[in-house]
Amino acid sequence: MQPFNDPPRQCGMDFLGDRTVQSIIDRSRPVLFVIGLLLAILSVAEAVPAIADAMAGSSDWKAFAESGAATLFIGVCLCLATYARNIQLSLRQGFQLTVASWVILSIFAALPLELSDAHLSLSDAVFEAVSGLTTTGSTVLVGLDNMPPGILIWRALLQWLGGIGIIAMAVILLPFLRIGGMQLFHMESSDRSEKIMPRSAILIGSILMVYTALTLLAALAYWQAGMSGFEAAVHAMTTLSTGGYSTSDGSMGHFNSPLIDWIAILFMVAAGIPFVLYVRMLGHRHIPFWQDSQVRFFLALLAAATLAVTFWLWLHNHQTLGDALTLATFNVVSVVTTTGYATADYGSWGAFAVMIFFMLTALGGCTGSTSGGLKAMRLQIAWIAIREQLLQIVRPRQILVRSYNDRPLADGVVGSVLVLFLAFVTTVVILSLGLALTGLDPVTSISGALTAVANVGPGIGPVIGPAGNFASLSDTAEWLLSGGMLMGRLEFLTVLVVFSPQFWLD
Amino acid sequence: MQPFNDPPRQCGMDFLGDRTVQSIIDRSRPVLFVIGLLLAILSVAEAVPAIADAMAGSSDWKAFAESGAATLFIGVCLCLATYARNIQLSLRQGFQLTVASWVILSIFAALPLELSDAHLSLSDAVFEAVSGLTTTGSTVLVGLDNMPPGILIWRALLQWLGGIGIIAMAVILLPFLRIGGMQLFHMESSDRSEKIMPRSAILIGSILMVYTALTLLAALAYWQAGMSGFEAAVHAMTTLSTGGYSTSDGSMGHFNSPLIDWIAILFMVAAGIPFVLYVRMLGHRHIPFWQDSQVRFFLALLAAATLAVTFWLWLHNHQTLGDALTLATFNVVSVVTTTGYATADYGSWGAFAVMIFFMLTALGGCTGSTSGGLKAMRLQIAWIAIREQLLQIVRPRQILVRSYNDRPLADGVVGSVLVLFLAFVTTVVILSLGLALTGLDPVTSISGALTAVANVGPGIGPVIGPAGNFASLSDTAEWLLSGGMLMGRLEFLTVLVVFSPQFWLD
Repeated sequence: MQPFNDPPRQCGMDFLGDRTVQSIIDRSRPVLFVIGLLLAILSVAEAVPAIADAMAGSSDWKAFAESGAATLFIGVCLCLATYARNIQLSLRQGFQLTVASWVILSIFAALPLELSDAHLSLSDAVFEAVSGLTTTGSTVLVGLDNMPPGILIWRALLQWLGGIGIIAMAVILLPFLRIGGMQLFHMESSDRSEKIMPRSAILIGSILMVYTALTLLAALAYWQAGMSGFEAAVHAMTTLSTGGYSTSDGSMGHFNSPLIDWIAILFMVAAGIPFVLYVRMLGHRHIPFWQDSQVRFFLALLAAATLAVTFWLWLHNHQTLGDALTLATFNVVSVVTTTGYATADYGSWGAFAVMIFFMLTALGGCTGSTSGGLKAMRLQIAWIAIREQLLQIVRPRQILVRSYNDRPLADGVVGSVLVLFLAFVTTVVILSLGLALTGLDPVTSISGALTAVANVGPGIGPVIGPAGNFASLSDTAEWLLSGGMLMGRLEFLTVLVVFSPQFWLD
Repeated sequence: MQPFNDPPRQCGMDFLGDRTVQSIIDRSRPVLFVIGLLLAILSVAEAVPAIADAMAGSSDWKAFAESGAATLFIGVCLCLATYARNIQLSLRQGFQLTVASWVILSIFAALPLELSDAHLSLSDAVFEAVSGLTTTGSTVLVGLDNMPPGILIWRALLQWLGGIGIIAMAVILLPFLRIGGMQLFHMESSDRSEKIMPRSAILIGSILMVYTALTLLAALAYWQAGMSGFEAAVHAMTTLSTGGYSTSDGSMGHFNSPLIDWIAILFMVAAGIPFVLYVRMLGHRHIPFWQDSQVRFFLALLAAATLAVTFWLWLHNHQTLGDALTLATFNVVSVVTTTGYATADYGSWGAFAVMIFFMLTALGGCTGSTSGGLKAMRLQIAWIAIREQLLQIVRPRQILVRSYNDRPLADGVVGSVLVLFLAFVTTVVILSLGLALTGLDPVTSISGALTAVANVGPGIGPVIGPAGNFASLSDTAEWLLSGGMLMGRLEFLTVLVVFSPQFWLD
């Protein structure tokens, strides 16, 4: 196995006339193989809700069994048709794989939701599946408390699988694709040797183990704190993936237990930290979190926002300091890590709190975690860029040495991060204009666009706020938001690259 | 006279112990001289409202005469105390001058408003003066239609003087200070020779002539179209400065005349174009607008936004196509050029129109015009940065040649523009959090912050929207917004530089 090379040699011989279906399939062979593999994994996962529903006596088990069988069949066929001994991914195929796998898996994941007794429309089912796989957590389902277990497990499984998918993407693909400053981690995790793929495979294996272990720990803790085993499993999966799907319309507020709140806070923060650090911790037997500048910044940000909201609740809303602290910490951590659980309708906490949550929606946790949004590393690099510009204005002739996390900062990284900011803002602007065209009010449009693009979950306001639901939105709005969630999850430029004409020309 | 050199030689001998008041005055001598000069100009301008009020029999003439005399006295004293045959401005003094002159002139301009029969509070008076000099046009005054002429002329004069001040700053100072990509125009307008100041002085003289001629033309056109001579003069001054102060609470809607609307549209667009181009047009006797990429982009943007709003009004609000076109063009041009006149409450035009106006608030006209906001050049360079990043991702080894307006684009320009975007967003975020703390709702907070920072005028929503007024805001909110207007007008980094510790250390 070899890492991504620049365009493969056989491409040089292609002319426009040669672009038959066969040649496109040939050129995308490794991409199709990996997608087939991922579909097979998805279909195996579908056995879990099928069994759960069968045991609970719900007829939904057929929906899962049928779509599982169909997905397995297509996945295995794809794998067999495109199997090759030596899988190589070119740079271009890396992009194709990233975009195509999320779109295709979302569509297959939506299948059982459409076939189930919940009878979701196509747009509803795709919205729910995209929101699951991107670990956003916005939902169009109402009456979760009385749903059969299969559908609840399926939503949690989608988020859990999506979560590990995102980490894998951030660790293996994005550093090579030079998206949003992720090349920073290319240099960090490898020495550009040819042994990257096997090393990545080992790394992803270790991360998967950590991810699973943390999920089991969270489930155990939730269960000990009073959840049923089923609730504990579902919430553990959606906590570690910073997804935020729940078994109740009331989200975490349903349990009304400060202990459960604090367990969730602990594991949401854990899920917002780069998973590579856990692996390194196990390997080196020391705790590397404090040495990592991104983690320090992330925790400082959480502390600052929590303190601000706590004092606001204490002084302005006259809550006891203890209650204020729990409420503030839970909801701030939930939004910043882009989990999206809620224990209260912070839309009713007054103007300042609403504004803080509005702003926090865009931020996100650390790169290489399951969280979405801009991410702490990018905020830091933006800050470095501003500071450097100020210095350069004051001392035009001084030569500046940039560094981040005690390493020198390559030239392209800062520009690449700033362009990601632009892409983020542009996507939110276009998406909110689109949502406004469907008739939504400005606050719902803007916060809806923001929460989708940052993969958080709830928006602001009565319609899609923490006490609201996405069920009332039109089909068009749901398609727009599904697109926004995918754009955000794939870090914008991956998608834009695939839609640029230069990408398809040799 | 010599251009900005790097830190003057005598600074090298200063140690921290030497920083007495005397040494600070000595080092800021040329800055204080120019500020004295500007104060003298301001005091002379105060004669106009004083005479107008005396003729109209309003006792306000005393307020203008008194504060004019005080301003003149202080200005002349400053000039005499700091006069030197050879005025040199160092880079550092360029920054000091930029920031100090806007702040000090705003305070002196607020004096007569406080002393007048309108009896504005300190925060109201400063807000109104800052809004005037920065050509923002947000107002705390209600009942303009029945005010004595002096106060109305004073507000218009502040905008008119602020307008030429902004052009002078963009043409002379910012290119040297390397703020927000303005160094682009340094290379364009000069050859780094030592004759820059005299050349700049001639250029500013020519621009002032063009600015005055266009203002006279606008006044004549307004007068012919049915305004009184007084109304025509006031509106001409606030049109060319893209300020937007009016003689009526109903703004331009008061006149209810499509002819006047279209005259305003014409001159607002004219004021959004770089004034250097007019001078070049007169010199070379050809029309250079179509060859200028920024102007083309600016006009295309206006056309696109106008079309979108026109069709929305036609289809959704069932207006005739003609009415829709006039309404849409006037209000889009007014917001994009950051003038801020209104002929209708677009807050009631439905969600999509509100969103469009919300987004347009940030954009602005061309650099080197009187308009505020991000400005067309920066939007173009941001777009170049995104496109370049996409190309670089697809073809990592290709060497790209950047160009803008048919000239090669220096390395620092793109980074400097992107940092200005970051500074813009950060300022809006902090300012809206501050406004929310004073109890304002999210839409008012965010759109208030945006309209102040982009120097537009009206916000969105019932409180500060085109049909609203800033009078109901608290003192704290007014101070915050005054700060925001100055930050925006001075392009953020100028202010940040002056507040950075490195700036004051040798």
